[in-house]
Amino acid sequence: MLSKNTVKFIKSLHQKKFRNQEQQFFVEGEKSVLEVLDSTFDVVLLLATDHFLTFNRALIAGKRIEVIPVTQKQLEGLGQYQSNDSALAVVRFKSNQEFEYPSGQLVIALDDVRDPGNLGTIIRIADWYGIRHLIFSDQTADFYNPKVIQASMGSFTRVNFFYADLKYLFKKWEVPVYGAFLDGVNIHQMSSPSPGVILMGNESQGISTDLEKSVTQKVTIPGFGAAESLNVAIATAILCDNFKRLLP
Amino acid sequence: MLSKNTVKFIKSLHQKKFRNQEQQFFVEGEKSVLEVLDSTFDVVLLLATDHFLTFNRALIAGKRIEVIPVTQKQLEGLGQYQSNDSALAVVRFKSNQEFEYPSGQLVIALDDVRDPGNLGTIIRIADWYGIRHLIFSDQTADFYNPKVIQASMGSFTRVNFFYADLKYLFKKWEVPVYGAFLDGVNIHQMSSPSPGVILMGNESQGISTDLEKSVTQKVTIPGFGAAESLNVAIATAILCDNFKRLLP
Repeated sequence: MLSKNTVKFIKSLHQKKFRNQEQQFFVEGEKSVLEVLDSTFDVVLLLATDHFLTFNRALIAGKRIEVIPVTQKQLEGLGQYQSNDSALAVVRFKSNQEFEYPSGQLVIALDDVRDPGNLGTIIRIADWYGIRHLIFSDQTADFYNPKVIQASMGSFTRVNFFYADLKYLFKKWEVPVYGAFLDGVNIHQMSSPSPGVILMGNESQGISTDLEKSVTQKVTIPGFGAAESLNVAIATAILCDNFKRLLP
Repeated sequence: MLSKNTVKFIKSLHQKKFRNQEQQFFVEGEKSVLEVLDSTFDVVLLLATDHFLTFNRALIAGKRIEVIPVTQKQLEGLGQYQSNDSALAVVRFKSNQEFEYPSGQLVIALDDVRDPGNLGTIIRIADWYGIRHLIFSDQTADFYNPKVIQASMGSFTRVNFFYADLKYLFKKWEVPVYGAFLDGVNIHQMSSPSPGVILMGNESQGISTDLEKSVTQKVTIPGFGAAESLNVAIATAILCDNFKRLLP
Protein backbone atom coordinates (compact mmCIF):
# COMPACT_ATOMS: atom_id res chain seq x y z
CA MET A 1 0.00 0.00 0.00
CA LEU A 2 1.12 3.51 -0.74
CA SER A 3 1.82 5.22 2.56
CA LYS A 4 1.82 8.93 3.28
CA ASN A 5 5.51 8.70 4.10
CA THR A 6 6.33 7.25 0.69
CA VAL A 7 4.35 10.02 -1.00
CA LYS A 8 6.22 12.58 1.07
CA PHE A 9 9.55 10.95 0.27
CA ILE A 10 8.95 10.94 -3.48
CA LYS A 11 7.77 14.53 -3.41
CA SER A 12 10.95 15.51 -1.58
CA LEU A 13 12.96 14.16 -4.53
CA HIS A 14 11.74 17.04 -6.66
CA GLN A 15 14.32 19.09 -4.78
CA LYS A 16 18.03 18.79 -5.44
CA LYS A 17 18.84 19.13 -1.74
CA PHE A 18 16.87 16.02 -0.84
CA ARG A 19 18.05 14.09 -3.89
CA ASN A 20 21.63 14.72 -2.83
CA GLN A 21 20.87 13.82 0.76
CA GLU A 22 19.21 10.52 -0.24
CA GLN A 23 21.45 9.94 -3.28
CA GLN A 24 18.28 8.93 -5.09
CA PHE A 25 16.10 10.35 -7.85
CA PHE A 26 12.90 9.34 -9.61
CA VAL A 27 12.01 8.30 -13.13
CA GLU A 28 8.44 8.33 -14.42
CA GLY A 29 6.38 7.15 -17.35
CA GLU A 30 6.32 3.72 -18.95
CA LYS A 31 9.13 4.16 -21.47
CA SER A 32 11.65 5.69 -19.09
CA VAL A 33 10.85 3.30 -16.23
CA LEU A 34 11.29 0.30 -18.54
CA GLU A 35 14.62 1.68 -19.74
CA VAL A 36 15.91 2.26 -16.21
CA LEU A 37 14.81 -1.23 -15.13
CA ASP A 38 16.79 -2.60 -18.07
CA SER A 39 19.90 -0.52 -17.32
CA THR A 40 22.86 -0.63 -14.96
CA PHE A 41 21.06 1.77 -12.61
CA ASP A 42 19.88 0.41 -9.29
CA VAL A 43 16.10 0.75 -8.87
CA VAL A 44 15.13 0.67 -5.20
CA LEU A 45 11.41 1.37 -5.31
CA LEU A 46 8.82 0.85 -8.02
CA LEU A 47 5.29 2.24 -7.93
CA ALA A 48 3.28 0.79 -10.77
CA THR A 49 -0.19 -0.14 -11.90
CA ASP A 50 -1.26 -3.78 -11.92
CA HIS A 51 -1.23 -3.62 -15.69
CA PHE A 52 2.42 -2.50 -15.78
CA LEU A 53 3.43 -5.11 -13.20
CA THR A 54 1.70 -7.94 -15.06
CA PHE A 55 3.24 -7.09 -18.40
CA ASN A 56 6.76 -6.49 -17.10
CA ARG A 57 7.12 -9.26 -14.56
CA ALA A 58 10.33 -10.58 -16.08
CA LEU A 59 12.07 -7.24 -15.83
CA ILE A 60 11.36 -6.96 -12.11
CA ALA A 61 11.79 -10.57 -11.02
CA GLY A 62 14.95 -11.44 -9.14
CA LYS A 63 15.82 -7.85 -8.33
CA ARG A 64 15.83 -6.29 -4.90
CA ILE A 65 13.12 -3.79 -5.63
CA GLU A 66 10.36 -2.77 -3.26
CA VAL A 67 7.24 -2.89 -5.42
CA ILE A 68 4.10 -0.98 -4.49
CA PRO A 69 1.05 -1.52 -6.69
CA VAL A 70 -0.77 1.75 -7.23
CA THR A 71 -3.66 3.12 -9.23
CA GLN A 72 -3.31 5.70 -12.01
CA LYS A 73 -4.98 8.16 -9.70
CA GLN A 74 -2.34 7.62 -7.03
CA LEU A 75 0.46 8.19 -9.54
CA GLU A 76 -0.92 11.55 -10.54
CA GLY A 77 0.60 14.41 -8.67
CA LEU A 78 3.54 12.34 -7.41
CA GLY A 79 5.97 13.16 -10.16
CA GLN A 80 5.93 16.08 -12.51
CA TYR A 81 3.87 14.51 -15.29
CA GLN A 82 0.35 15.78 -15.65
CA SER A 83 -0.67 12.27 -16.45
CA ASN A 84 1.29 9.14 -15.74
CA ASP A 85 -0.70 6.04 -16.40
CA SER A 86 1.82 3.37 -15.52
CA ALA A 87 4.87 3.70 -13.28
CA LEU A 88 7.36 5.68 -11.24
CA ALA A 89 10.71 4.32 -10.08
CA VAL A 90 13.03 5.59 -7.35
CA VAL A 91 16.61 4.99 -8.41
CA ARG A 92 20.01 5.26 -6.76
CA PHE A 93 22.53 7.84 -8.00
CA LYS A 94 25.62 6.59 -9.73
CA SER A 95 28.73 7.97 -8.10
CA ASN A 96 30.31 10.98 -9.79
CA GLN A 97 33.28 9.05 -11.02
CA GLU A 98 35.99 10.55 -13.16
CA PHE A 99 36.80 8.68 -16.35
CA GLU A 100 39.79 8.87 -18.63
CA TYR A 101 39.45 10.36 -22.09
CA PRO A 102 37.84 7.60 -24.20
CA SER A 103 40.51 7.32 -26.86
CA GLY A 104 39.45 8.10 -30.42
CA GLN A 105 35.95 9.15 -29.39
CA LEU A 106 33.97 12.36 -29.18
CA VAL A 107 33.05 13.77 -25.78
CA ILE A 108 30.49 16.51 -25.10
CA ALA A 109 31.44 19.09 -22.45
CA LEU A 110 28.92 21.60 -21.07
CA ASP A 111 30.05 24.85 -19.47
CA ASP A 112 27.15 25.94 -17.23
CA VAL A 113 24.22 24.82 -19.34
CA ARG A 114 21.56 25.70 -16.79
CA ASP A 115 18.25 24.68 -18.28
CA PRO A 116 17.26 21.10 -17.37
CA GLY A 117 15.30 20.71 -20.61
CA ASN A 118 18.40 21.61 -22.62
CA LEU A 119 20.56 19.19 -20.64
CA GLY A 120 18.06 16.35 -21.11
CA THR A 121 17.78 17.07 -24.83
CA ILE A 122 21.58 17.13 -25.18
CA ILE A 123 21.80 13.72 -23.48
CA ARG A 124 19.28 12.36 -26.00
CA ILE A 125 21.31 13.85 -28.86
CA ALA A 126 24.54 12.33 -27.50
CA ASP A 127 22.83 8.94 -27.34
CA TRP A 128 21.56 9.32 -30.93
CA TYR A 129 25.07 10.00 -32.18
CA GLY A 130 26.65 7.28 -30.07
CA ILE A 131 28.58 9.78 -27.95
CA ARG A 132 28.76 7.96 -24.66
CA HIS A 133 30.78 10.39 -22.54
CA LEU A 134 29.71 13.78 -21.24
CA ILE A 135 31.39 16.10 -18.78
CA PHE A 136 29.72 18.99 -17.01
CA SER A 137 30.93 22.07 -15.17
CA ASP A 138 29.66 22.30 -11.60
CA GLN A 139 27.10 24.95 -12.52
CA THR A 140 25.51 22.82 -15.21
CA ALA A 141 21.95 21.65 -14.42
CA ASP A 142 21.60 18.60 -12.19
CA PHE A 143 21.60 15.38 -14.20
CA TYR A 144 19.04 13.91 -11.79
CA ASN A 145 16.55 16.77 -12.08
CA PRO A 146 13.20 15.20 -13.14
CA LYS A 147 13.04 17.53 -16.15
CA VAL A 148 16.46 16.32 -17.34
CA ILE A 149 15.37 12.71 -16.97
CA GLN A 150 12.13 13.41 -18.82
CA ALA A 151 13.73 15.31 -21.72
CA SER A 152 16.40 12.63 -22.17
CA MET A 153 13.65 10.11 -23.07
CA GLY A 154 15.49 7.19 -21.51
CA SER A 155 18.87 8.14 -22.96
CA PHE A 156 20.14 9.05 -19.46
CA THR A 157 20.58 5.31 -18.88
CA ARG A 158 23.11 4.98 -21.71
CA VAL A 159 25.65 7.74 -21.10
CA ASN A 160 28.61 8.15 -18.78
CA PHE A 161 29.01 11.55 -17.20
CA PHE A 162 30.73 13.41 -14.46
CA TYR A 163 30.83 16.88 -13.02
CA ALA A 164 34.33 18.28 -13.09
CA ASP A 165 36.63 21.26 -13.29
CA LEU A 166 36.63 21.39 -17.09
CA LYS A 167 39.75 23.53 -17.32
CA TYR A 168 41.75 21.09 -15.23
CA LEU A 169 40.39 18.16 -17.19
CA PHE A 170 41.16 19.61 -20.64
CA LYS A 171 44.72 20.19 -19.52
CA LYS A 172 45.03 16.67 -18.22
CA TRP A 173 43.46 15.01 -21.25
CA GLU A 174 45.52 16.91 -23.83
CA VAL A 175 42.95 16.47 -26.61
CA PRO A 176 41.49 18.93 -29.12
CA VAL A 177 38.75 21.06 -27.59
CA TYR A 178 36.26 22.34 -30.18
CA GLY A 179 34.43 25.31 -28.67
CA ALA A 180 31.15 26.61 -30.12
CA PHE A 181 31.56 30.31 -30.87
CA LEU A 182 30.06 32.75 -33.34
CA ASP A 183 33.47 33.57 -34.84
CA GLY A 184 35.10 30.21 -35.39
CA VAL A 185 35.83 27.99 -38.36
CA ASN A 186 32.75 27.24 -40.45
CA ILE A 187 31.85 23.67 -39.50
CA HIS A 188 30.82 22.96 -43.09
CA GLN A 189 34.33 23.74 -44.23
CA MET A 190 36.26 21.66 -41.73
CA SER A 191 37.94 18.56 -43.04
CA SER A 192 39.04 15.49 -41.13
CA PRO A 193 39.20 16.87 -37.57
CA SER A 194 40.75 14.69 -34.88
CA PRO A 195 38.47 13.24 -32.24
CA GLY A 196 38.17 15.40 -29.14
CA VAL A 197 35.78 17.37 -27.00
CA ILE A 198 32.81 19.42 -28.27
CA LEU A 199 32.44 22.24 -25.74
CA MET A 200 29.14 24.13 -25.47
CA GLY A 201 28.59 27.23 -23.37
CA ASN A 202 25.92 28.70 -21.15
CA GLU A 203 22.55 29.69 -22.68
CA SER A 204 23.14 33.42 -22.41
CA GLN A 205 26.87 33.87 -21.73
CA GLY A 206 28.33 31.20 -24.00
CA ILE A 207 31.68 29.69 -23.06
CA SER A 208 33.30 31.50 -20.13
CA THR A 209 36.34 33.68 -20.82
CA ASP A 210 38.41 31.53 -18.54
CA LEU A 211 37.55 28.32 -20.33
CA GLU A 212 37.94 29.92 -23.75
CA LYS A 213 41.70 29.67 -23.24
CA SER A 214 41.43 25.89 -23.21
CA VAL A 215 39.71 25.82 -26.59
CA THR A 216 42.07 24.60 -29.31
CA GLN A 217 39.68 25.25 -32.21
CA LYS A 218 36.69 27.58 -32.32
CA VAL A 219 33.90 26.24 -34.50
CA THR A 220 30.81 27.97 -35.87
CA ILE A 221 27.54 26.89 -37.41
CA PRO A 222 27.11 29.02 -40.51
CA GLY A 223 24.04 31.25 -40.45
CA PHE A 224 22.30 32.42 -43.60
CA GLY A 225 19.54 34.54 -42.10
CA ALA A 226 18.95 37.07 -39.35
CA ALA A 227 18.50 35.02 -36.18
CA GLU A 228 21.23 36.00 -33.73
CA SER A 229 21.77 32.59 -32.23
CA LEU A 230 20.53 29.06 -31.91
CA ASN A 231 19.37 27.30 -28.77
CA VAL A 232 22.26 25.39 -27.16
CA ALA A 233 20.66 21.97 -27.62
CA ILE A 234 20.01 22.72 -31.30
CA ALA A 235 23.60 23.89 -31.74
CA THR A 236 24.93 20.77 -29.99
CA ALA A 237 22.92 18.57 -32.35
CA ILE A 238 24.23 20.35 -35.44
CA LEU A 239 27.85 20.15 -34.27
CA CYS A 240 27.51 16.47 -33.36
CA ASP A 241 25.98 15.79 -36.78
CA ASN A 242 28.86 17.50 -38.55
CA PHE A 243 31.54 15.78 -36.46
CA LYS A 244 29.93 12.39 -37.02
CA ARG A 245 29.81 13.10 -40.76
CA LEU A 246 33.52 13.93 -40.72
CA LEU A 247 34.51 11.27 -38.19
CA PRO A 248 32.09 8.40 -38.69
CA MET B 1 -3.65 54.31 -17.54
CA LEU B 2 -4.06 50.56 -17.66
CA SER B 3 -7.78 49.78 -17.44
CA LYS B 4 -9.39 46.58 -16.25
CA ASN B 5 -10.82 46.12 -19.72
CA THR B 6 -7.39 46.24 -21.32
CA VAL B 7 -6.11 43.69 -18.83
CA LYS B 8 -9.09 41.48 -19.59
CA PHE B 9 -8.56 41.90 -23.32
CA ILE B 10 -4.89 40.94 -23.20
CA LYS B 11 -5.62 37.95 -21.02
CA SER B 12 -8.23 36.81 -23.52
CA LEU B 13 -5.49 36.67 -26.18
CA HIS B 14 -3.95 33.69 -24.41
CA GLN B 15 -6.78 31.72 -26.03
CA LYS B 16 -6.79 30.86 -29.72
CA LYS B 17 -10.54 31.44 -29.93
CA PHE B 18 -10.22 35.08 -28.88
CA ARG B 19 -7.08 35.66 -30.93
CA ASN B 20 -8.96 34.49 -34.02
CA GLN B 21 -11.98 36.58 -33.13
CA GLU B 22 -9.88 39.72 -32.66
CA GLN B 23 -7.30 38.81 -35.32
CA GLN B 24 -4.70 39.99 -32.83
CA PHE B 25 -2.00 38.41 -30.66
CA PHE B 26 0.55 39.61 -28.14
CA VAL B 27 4.33 39.75 -28.02
CA GLU B 28 6.24 40.23 -24.77
CA GLY B 29 9.72 40.96 -23.52
CA GLU B 30 12.11 43.65 -24.67
CA LYS B 31 13.85 41.81 -27.51
CA SER B 32 10.71 40.47 -29.17
CA VAL B 33 8.75 43.71 -28.77
CA LEU B 34 11.62 45.67 -30.33
CA GLU B 35 11.74 43.24 -33.22
CA VAL B 36 8.01 43.41 -33.86
CA LEU B 37 8.08 47.22 -33.73
CA ASP B 38 10.81 47.11 -36.35
CA SER B 39 8.97 44.65 -38.59
CA THR B 40 6.16 44.70 -41.16
CA PHE B 41 3.70 43.65 -38.46
CA ASP B 42 1.13 46.18 -37.36
CA VAL B 43 1.38 46.94 -33.63
CA VAL B 44 -1.88 48.36 -32.29
CA LEU B 45 -1.23 48.61 -28.58
CA LEU B 46 1.98 48.93 -26.59
CA LEU B 47 2.25 48.55 -22.84
CA ALA B 48 5.70 49.56 -21.69
CA THR B 49 7.69 50.94 -18.80
CA ASP B 50 8.85 54.56 -18.88
CA HIS B 51 12.37 53.27 -19.31
CA PHE B 52 11.45 51.31 -22.43
CA LEU B 53 9.47 54.23 -23.87
CA THR B 54 12.28 56.70 -23.29
CA PHE B 55 14.93 54.53 -24.88
CA ASN B 56 12.86 53.48 -27.89
CA ARG B 57 11.06 56.70 -28.75
CA ALA B 58 12.23 56.67 -32.37
CA LEU B 59 10.80 53.23 -32.98
CA ILE B 60 7.34 54.26 -31.78
CA ALA B 61 7.14 57.82 -33.12
CA GLY B 62 4.94 58.38 -36.14
CA LYS B 63 3.11 55.09 -35.83
CA ARG B 64 -0.54 54.69 -34.98
CA ILE B 65 0.04 52.82 -31.76
CA GLU B 66 -1.92 53.28 -28.57
CA VAL B 67 0.78 53.54 -25.89
CA ILE B 68 0.03 52.84 -22.25
CA PRO B 69 2.86 53.46 -19.77
CA VAL B 70 2.90 50.72 -17.15
CA THR B 71 5.01 49.59 -14.24
CA GLN B 72 6.95 46.31 -14.14
CA LYS B 73 4.45 45.14 -11.56
CA GLN B 74 1.53 45.76 -13.90
CA LEU B 75 3.22 43.80 -16.69
CA GLU B 76 3.61 40.75 -14.51
CA GLY B 77 0.80 38.29 -14.86
CA LEU B 78 -0.45 39.83 -18.10
CA GLY B 79 1.49 37.67 -20.50
CA GLN B 80 2.99 34.28 -19.88
CA TYR B 81 6.41 35.40 -18.71
CA GLN B 82 7.12 35.00 -15.03
CA SER B 83 8.96 38.26 -15.21
CA ASN B 84 8.71 40.86 -17.93
CA ASP B 85 10.49 44.03 -17.03
CA SER B 86 9.83 46.10 -20.10
CA ALA B 87 7.04 45.73 -22.63
CA LEU B 88 4.11 43.88 -24.17
CA ALA B 89 2.68 44.64 -27.60
CA VAL B 90 -0.67 43.71 -29.10
CA VAL B 91 -0.22 43.04 -32.80
CA ARG B 92 -2.53 42.42 -35.73
CA PHE B 93 -2.50 39.05 -37.52
CA LYS B 94 -1.16 38.92 -41.03
CA SER B 95 -3.68 37.37 -43.36
CA ASN B 96 -3.15 33.70 -44.16
CA GLN B 97 -2.08 34.36 -47.72
CA GLU B 98 -0.95 31.64 -50.08
CA PHE B 99 2.38 32.23 -51.77
CA GLU B 100 3.90 30.62 -54.82
CA TYR B 101 6.89 28.30 -54.45
CA PRO B 102 9.90 30.62 -54.02
CA SER B 103 11.96 29.42 -56.93
CA GLY B 104 15.35 27.93 -56.11
CA GLN B 105 14.79 28.13 -52.37
CA LEU B 106 14.18 25.73 -49.52
CA VAL B 107 10.78 25.67 -47.82
CA ILE B 108 9.94 23.99 -44.51
CA ALA B 109 6.59 22.17 -44.33
CA LEU B 110 5.16 20.89 -41.04
CA ASP B 111 2.60 18.10 -40.95
CA ASP B 112 0.77 18.48 -37.62
CA VAL B 113 3.65 19.63 -35.41
CA ARG B 114 1.51 20.23 -32.34
CA ASP B 115 3.85 21.58 -29.68
CA PRO B 116 4.07 25.40 -29.69
CA GLY B 117 7.63 25.27 -28.32
CA ASN B 118 8.68 23.07 -31.23
CA LEU B 119 7.00 25.35 -33.77
CA GLY B 120 8.66 28.46 -32.31
CA THR B 121 12.05 26.76 -32.27
CA ILE B 122 11.63 25.64 -35.89
CA ILE B 123 10.82 29.24 -36.91
CA ARG B 124 14.05 30.37 -35.22
CA ILE B 125 16.00 27.64 -37.05
CA ALA B 126 14.44 28.63 -40.38
CA ASP B 127 15.49 32.23 -39.76
CA TRP B 128 19.04 31.13 -38.87
CA TYR B 129 19.37 29.25 -42.14
CA GLY B 130 17.74 31.99 -44.20
CA ILE B 131 14.72 29.84 -45.03
CA ARG B 132 12.01 32.44 -45.36
CA HIS B 133 9.01 30.33 -46.29
CA LEU B 134 7.13 27.84 -44.13
CA ILE B 135 3.88 26.03 -44.73
CA PHE B 136 1.81 24.30 -42.08
CA SER B 137 -0.95 21.71 -42.10
CA ASP B 138 -4.14 22.88 -40.41
CA GLN B 139 -3.44 20.80 -37.31
CA THR B 140 -0.02 22.37 -36.74
CA ALA B 141 0.22 24.57 -33.63
CA ASP B 142 -1.07 28.15 -33.93
CA PHE B 143 1.65 30.52 -35.14
CA TYR B 144 0.24 33.24 -32.86
CA ASN B 145 0.29 31.13 -29.69
CA PRO B 146 2.35 33.11 -27.10
CA LYS B 147 4.63 30.09 -26.62
CA VAL B 148 5.41 30.00 -30.34
CA ILE B 149 6.19 33.71 -30.34
CA GLN B 150 8.40 33.32 -27.28
CA ALA B 151 10.35 30.33 -28.58
CA SER B 152 10.93 31.99 -31.95
CA MET B 153 12.95 34.73 -30.21
CA GLY B 154 11.87 37.44 -32.63
CA SER B 155 12.33 35.27 -35.74
CA PHE B 156 8.53 35.14 -36.24
CA THR B 157 8.83 38.65 -37.70
CA ARG B 158 11.09 37.47 -40.52
CA VAL B 159 9.32 34.48 -42.05
CA ASN B 160 6.43 34.06 -44.45
CA PHE B 161 4.02 31.28 -43.65
CA PHE B 162 0.60 29.96 -44.39
CA TYR B 163 -1.65 27.16 -43.29
CA ALA B 164 -2.62 24.97 -46.20
CA ASP B 165 -3.65 21.59 -47.51
CA LEU B 166 -0.07 20.34 -47.94
CA LYS B 167 -1.01 17.51 -50.28
CA TYR B 168 -2.77 19.87 -52.64
CA LEU B 169 0.11 22.35 -52.47
CA PHE B 170 2.84 19.79 -53.16
CA LYS B 171 0.93 18.68 -56.25
CA LYS B 172 0.53 22.23 -57.43
CA TRP B 173 4.13 23.25 -56.79
CA GLU B 174 5.69 20.24 -58.49
CA VAL B 175 8.93 20.47 -56.50
CA PRO B 176 10.98 17.81 -54.70
CA VAL B 177 9.54 16.99 -51.28
CA TYR B 178 12.16 15.66 -48.84
CA GLY B 179 10.34 13.84 -46.05
CA ALA B 180 12.03 13.04 -42.73
CA PHE B 181 11.72 9.30 -42.12
CA LEU B 182 13.73 6.69 -40.25
CA ASP B 183 14.27 4.62 -43.42
CA GLY B 184 15.32 7.15 -46.03
CA VAL B 185 18.55 8.13 -47.72
CA ASN B 186 21.33 8.99 -45.27
CA ILE B 187 21.51 12.78 -45.36
CA HIS B 188 25.31 12.62 -45.03
CA GLN B 189 25.49 10.68 -48.26
CA MET B 190 23.26 12.84 -50.42
CA SER B 191 24.94 14.88 -53.07
CA SER B 192 23.71 18.01 -54.82
CA PRO B 193 19.97 17.76 -54.14
CA SER B 194 17.65 20.19 -55.93
CA PRO B 195 15.97 22.88 -53.88
CA GLY B 196 12.55 21.90 -52.58
CA VAL B 197 10.49 21.30 -49.49
CA ILE B 198 11.76 19.78 -46.23
CA LEU B 199 8.74 18.03 -44.73
CA MET B 200 8.65 17.21 -41.01
CA GLY B 201 5.97 15.11 -39.32
CA ASN B 202 4.03 15.10 -36.10
CA GLU B 203 5.90 14.57 -32.80
CA SER B 204 4.59 11.05 -32.21
CA GLN B 205 3.11 9.91 -35.54
CA GLY B 206 5.63 11.34 -37.97
CA ILE B 207 4.46 12.17 -41.49
CA SER B 208 0.91 10.95 -42.15
CA THR B 209 0.40 7.97 -44.45
CA ASP B 210 -1.62 10.10 -46.80
CA LEU B 211 1.08 12.76 -47.13
CA GLU B 212 3.83 10.16 -47.44
CA LYS B 213 2.66 9.60 -51.02
CA SER B 214 3.63 13.18 -51.87
CA VAL B 215 7.21 12.65 -50.67
CA THR B 216 9.62 12.37 -53.59
CA GLN B 217 12.68 11.52 -51.47
CA LYS B 218 12.78 10.08 -47.96
CA VAL B 219 15.73 11.37 -45.97
CA THR B 220 17.20 10.15 -42.69
CA ILE B 221 19.56 11.52 -40.09
CA PRO B 222 22.06 8.74 -39.40
CA GLY B 223 22.03 7.47 -35.83
CA PHE B 224 25.08 5.92 -34.20
CA GLY B 225 23.67 5.10 -30.78
CA ALA B 226 20.56 3.74 -29.14
CA ALA B 227 18.14 6.68 -28.95
CA GLU B 228 15.04 5.80 -30.96
CA SER B 229 14.37 9.25 -32.30
CA LEU B 230 15.20 12.94 -32.15
CA ASN B 231 12.88 15.78 -31.20
CA VAL B 232 11.27 17.26 -34.32
CA ALA B 233 12.89 20.69 -33.87
CA ILE B 234 16.31 19.07 -33.47
CA ALA B 235 15.73 16.95 -36.56
CA THR B 236 14.60 20.01 -38.54
CA ALA B 237 17.79 21.85 -37.57
CA ILE B 238 20.01 18.97 -38.66
CA LEU B 239 18.25 18.57 -42.00
CA CYS B 240 18.38 22.33 -42.66
CA ASP B 241 22.08 22.33 -41.82
CA ASN B 242 22.76 19.50 -44.26
CA PHE B 243 20.67 21.03 -47.05
CA LYS B 244 22.39 24.40 -46.61
CA ARG B 245 25.76 22.66 -46.72
CA LEU B 246 24.81 20.97 -49.98
CA LEU B 247 22.88 23.93 -51.42
CA PRO B 248 24.54 27.04 -50.06
